Amino acid sequence: MNGNKAASHGGNLYAALRHSGGDLSEIIDFSANINPLGLSENIRQTLYTSIESLIHYPDAQGHDLKHAISQYYHVKDEMITLGNGAVELMYILCHMLSPKRIMVTAPTFSEYEAAARASGAMIEYFYLQADHHFTIDIQAMVKQLATIDLVFICNPNNPTGTLLTNIQIQELLIAAMASNTYVVVDESFIDFLPNEGAYTCRQLLAEFSNLIIIHSLTKFYAIPGLRLGFALANAELTNLLHSGKDPWNVNTLAQKAGVAALNDSAYQHQSKEYIGKNKMDLYHSLLSIPGLKPYLPSVNFILINISASNMTGEELGNAMAVHNILIRDCSNYPGLSSSYIRIAVKRPEENSILLRTLKKVIGRVL
Amino acid sequence: MNGNKAASHGGNLYAALRHSGGDLSEIIDFSANINPLGLSENIRQTLYTSIESLIHYPDAQGHDLKHAISQYYHVKDEMITLGNGAVELMYILCHMLSPKRIMVTAPTFSEYEAAARASGAMIEYFYLQADHHFTIDIQAMVKQLATIDLVFICNPNNPTGTLLTNIQIQELLIAAMASNTYVVVDESFIDFLPNEGAYTCRQLLAEFSNLIIIHSLTKFYAIPGLRLGFALANAELTNLLHSGKDPWNVNTLAQKAGVAALNDSAYQHQSKEYIGKNKMDLYHSLLSIPGLKPYLPSVNFILINISASNMTGEELGNAMAVHNILIRDCSNYPGLSSSYIRIAVKRPEENSILLRTLKKVIGRVL
Repeated sequence: MNGNKAASHGGNLYAALRHSGGDLSEIIDFSANINPLGLSENIRQTLYTSIESLIHYPDAQGHDLKHAISQYYHVKDEMITLGNGAVELMYILCHMLSPKRIMVTAPTFSEYEAAARASGAMIEYFYLQADHHFTIDIQAMVKQLATIDLVFICNPNNPTGTLLTNIQIQELLIAAMASNTYVVVDESFIDFLPNEGAYTCRQLLAEFSNLIIIHSLTKFYAIPGLRLGFALANAELTNLLHSGKDPWNVNTLAQKAGVAALNDSAYQHQSKEYIGKNKMDLYHSLLSIPGLKPYLPSVNFILINISASNMTGEELGNAMAVHNILIRDCSNYPGLSSSYIRIAVKRPEENSILLRTLKKVIGRVL
Repeated sequence: MNGNKAASHGGNLYAALRHSGGDLSEIIDFSANINPLGLSENIRQTLYTSIESLIHYPDAQGHDLKHAISQYYHVKDEMITLGNGAVELMYILCHMLSPKRIMVTAPTFSEYEAAARASGAMIEYFYLQADHHFTIDIQAMVKQLATIDLVFICNPNNPTGTLLTNIQIQELLIAAMASNTYVVVDESFIDFLPNEGAYTCRQLLAEFSNLIIIHSLTKFYAIPGLRLGFALANAELTNLLHSGKDPWNVNTLAQKAGVAALNDSAYQHQSKEYIGKNKMDLYHSLLSIPGLKPYLPSVNFILINISASNMTGEELGNAMAVHNILIRDCSNYPGLSSSYIRIAVKRPEENSILLRTLKKVIGRVL
């Protein structure tokens, strides 16, 4: 089990290197959805100048980072729980709320299910339909809430890119209040959207005591190795989350990098523009490759149905790995067949290599 | 609660700075038990050269660090769970084992109790006696195990410095097997001992399926800001711990620093020798100050009864803080009165400042 959980995700670069015996610089990793602009100069400098402070404990109150989050996202300090990555908070949340029965969409990010299982919960899948572009039918979901203690919504959804507006989620929250169901909205990719105001649920926190928002800061700011995320909820739930965690869970470098990141408006603007353009260029190029059916992306990753290529996701993944390109085989997602892959949107020169290699590999089969 | 938990520990430097408005370099922190030799050059260089790799996820399998731990501590890889600090593992352990009733010595490190409460456990204190030098009477403890699901042993005990030999703990483990009690031994300060072989329980892991060892790597290697620890247990318990945690819980810099640390035998030897000499120098100097009764230290911290000084720990802590010296007021430890403080063993020049200031501050009162 120690290894299996790791192997079920993208971005498993170190394992790939151990397998191939290759070098980090030789691999292009399309399996992890990280901002291709990489470390901002502000974050880099902050990290270099903060190394000497590692001889002290992190600030257990996370004072400066909570303040920066509060300012940037317009939420109160008392609603913020800092996490050693967003995923840590999913586990703490499930450990502390002990839901008996949870609902997740199928497909979606697999750690919701893993965190819920770790707390002994039963899992109910809400299947999304490929021929409806994997949209989430809120009215159908509402009808199934009666026996559900907690539902996870990934918005935009990983790996499909599907978006729900906050008006749609408000409808879910109202029904969930009536059925005593917690709604956990994972907004980890929302910073990539050009118009996140129509989608984020932050302004609903004051009204809905059953709402918890989880947010990663490592994808948009390209610091997954450092681990950083936060949860937003009312003060009572926030206190509960704090009581269930190590007080020093967010390391000093992550706290300082987070403050630098949230104050870096130039990087934020540049990233949104860069991803916005490159995702559409890559999408259109993928559309033109016979055997591939990409889904319209909302953020920095694209789900592709490859059934017409006569390869499974696993076969294509292995064939691409030979060329030092990692893609995400999606066959272990409940709700997806073995014919799906997910790729990250990277730099144009890297995307070109991906496209060229995909054509070559698939062309051999077709 | 968000703030209270933080305030109940030593090393709360950032909060102290916010309170005083002072500068990090002006404060001497005797409240956190960190190796005074600071960052080793090997760790420092590893950190600087690893910053660029933060754009990738950490190795979810922790392959290289597990290998280094396995080699250094002579344990099998399959028995190792890596932690974002040792404290994270205490929470995961309690979340996953859900003990109904746990036992802790009073006094001891407070996060055992906090982690157990977070999982809904009842707490039973095993009171240690000041006039018996806070020794742990294993035979008396054994008699109370029948209703206990899990017992935490801190060895050496923080804040008293009390040591148990592994022969004594084996006696506890045998009784605990009969009563279905897990025994969690926290060996976070054991690396500071010159002769840890007589104390560590690592060689008992193969025999006792109810034994879990927790070990911090941040105190001895002076990287508390980075967070790093591990748990040792049989493969079944190790799998359970893995299933209850985020697969990426240990950040990349902590993993790489851990490997560098465990391979740095020069730093290890130098640290043991340095602490061994300085702790006894500081102890003898403290003995000579009227009003102070220090307890014989085993590692890098010293518990002091200050009742003859006519000050409480809180009063002395406040009076020392005026001079930019942080000490650990121990009045919030169950099992200790308001007349105890704990200080870390630091560099001779810092220890001299501590001694001089203590004399001045206490002299005014006596």
